[in-house]
Amino acid sequence: MNEVVAGLDIGGTNSAIGIVDRSGNCLSSSVIPTAAFAEVDQFVAAGEQAIRELLHNNPEWKLAGIGIGAPNGNYYRGTIEFAPNLHWKGIIPLADLFGKRFGVKSVLTNDANAAAIGEMIFGGAKGMRDFIIITLGTGVGSGIVVNGELVYGHDGFAGEIGHTIYDPNGRDCGCGRKGCLETYTSAGGIKRTLFELMGQRNTKSSFRGKSFDEITAADIATAATAGDELALEAFDITGKILGLKLADSVAHTSPEAIFLFGGLAKSGKLIFEPTQRYMEENMLNIFKNKVKLLPSLLKEENVAILGAAALAWKELDK
Amino acid sequence: MNEVVAGLDIGGTNSAIGIVDRSGNCLSSSVIPTAAFAEVDQFVAAGEQAIRELLHNNPEWKLAGIGIGAPNGNYYRGTIEFAPNLHWKGIIPLADLFGKRFGVKSVLTNDANAAAIGEMIFGGAKGMRDFIIITLGTGVGSGIVVNGELVYGHDGFAGEIGHTIYDPNGRDCGCGRKGCLETYTSAGGIKRTLFELMGQRNTKSSFRGKSFDEITAADIATAATAGDELALEAFDITGKILGLKLADSVAHTSPEAIFLFGGLAKSGKLIFEPTQRYMEENMLNIFKNKVKLLPSLLKEENVAILGAAALAWKELDK
Repeated sequence: MNEVVAGLDIGGTNSAIGIVDRSGNCLSSSVIPTAAFAEVDQFVAAGEQAIRELLHNNPEWKLAGIGIGAPNGNYYRGTIEFAPNLHWKGIIPLADLFGKRFGVKSVLTNDANAAAIGEMIFGGAKGMRDFIIITLGTGVGSGIVVNGELVYGHDGFAGEIGHTIYDPNGRDCGCGRKGCLETYTSAGGIKRTLFELMGQRNTKSSFRGKSFDEITAADIATAATAGDELALEAFDITGKILGLKLADSVAHTSPEAIFLFGGLAKSGKLIFEPTQRYMEENMLNIFKNKVKLLPSLLKEENVAILGAAALAWKELDK
Repeated sequence: MNEVVAGLDIGGTNSAIGIVDRSGNCLSSSVIPTAAFAEVDQFVAAGEQAIRELLHNNPEWKLAGIGIGAPNGNYYRGTIEFAPNLHWKGIIPLADLFGKRFGVKSVLTNDANAAAIGEMIFGGAKGMRDFIIITLGTGVGSGIVVNGELVYGHDGFAGEIGHTIYDPNGRDCGCGRKGCLETYTSAGGIKRTLFELMGQRNTKSSFRGKSFDEITAADIATAATAGDELALEAFDITGKILGLKLADSVAHTSPEAIFLFGGLAKSGKLIFEPTQRYMEENMLNIFKNKVKLLPSLLKEENVAILGAAALAWKELDK
């Protein structure tokens, strides 16, 4: 029998489920539509069925544990707490609900934390004891690792760098406050920057004929690569704000490396170059030229599953 | 024989040396003038003599270790590195220099980190696994504790919250950059705020007849207590900026408590009230009304010695 774990990535629309071995190979996977289940018990039943089907096809696999990455996930309690993008309200003990169905250890953390553990166990942070991962997607998430352990904080919710404040009088954030880093450096954030620039500059741009709703961060990257000045400036501003705030993060935990991950990170040099430059510019002397800014080494399509699975393996190895 | 450790607090002008027992009692102490020694070897010789004299008077004490708190202290290497306020330039292996003279374990960290360990072992953070200490003195220092361990980072220099940036176009900082938290919330920072307010407001104030050089943060506290409006506003602004940046720190490590310590913290409610209020106002929902803002429970006069001694005891107990 070969030991495997199930990695679950709970998303607002869909949830991905994968069977992962000790080396970080995602052996088999499937998807269930989170939003289709009004009640969490229905979702758990569907999740159980999906996992059993994946296992059924390969009788040599023995399920050793379950790892779950979820929005507003609380590691200490194994719960999802008041997640704004899920139907299930209040506090949901999802780790227990899955663990009981299979009689195995089941652990849960938030999705960015899971990505950090994935990077540490299977990706580019192997052997690193102090690093930070920043996910630049629909939102901006983060996972902080100190002394080889994920920072959960006293309540299980640590690592919300996306909700540190860049400008207390700044942009409206989905969290109800103003000026959070997320409103500037997420996929939506760079679009907001581009639209502000269209107001501030007279510069011609391929975006002058497009509405806010019809463009994406990927369009801005494509235009920047083609030389669109406003798109290039939007990336520079995004890197400037991200670099400034990452310098603050370095002052907290002095990581060996910061990994960028998610939609915007796929823009490569467009985002890495200004972020690194402005981070160095804003760092205290003792930290300068020490902190590597790196792309995640995990494959985009499986990263959330691998992160959740890595959490399960790490827990089983304790 | 009763085991004791020596705690050394290295300051730019004077260094304090104390003999401390396991319960955190400072049994005996003395001071040597750091600035009088051009060479570090002379300083170490004087330090050795001071410790031997303290021990000589009490033959029942057995020295088990030495702990040192120092500016720009590197825990991993036991060194002071490029400290701007000390005569000794470059990298000074102070822990080794002292350790060899007594044949005992000798450890070193920066002064704010030592204060955090002191609070954890002997003070108000007993039993807490996640907390932050902020020293509001000539500078603004910090020590971050995660999972019961001090955060040193990959290079030994983590925990520089005083040098996170409040305003990248803001006040000149001694570190060579602009707008560091320290330039607003140190003893000098509140004075700078008061002087800016004297320019902005027409309000009468007891400070209108005083020069920048002749007033101190303590004077501002006294005036605020007596109802001086500008002094009160200076405290409110200081708390606003500190609260805003502490909300960022909470988003990183989600501590159970933040301890304020040092000169400005002695102003009590004048600084605690606005700091707590603005911190709550700027915190992400999941962190609100959870983080205690507390005064240090260590006695001001011995805190640096106790912190250094606590570091030694913690190391001996490993």
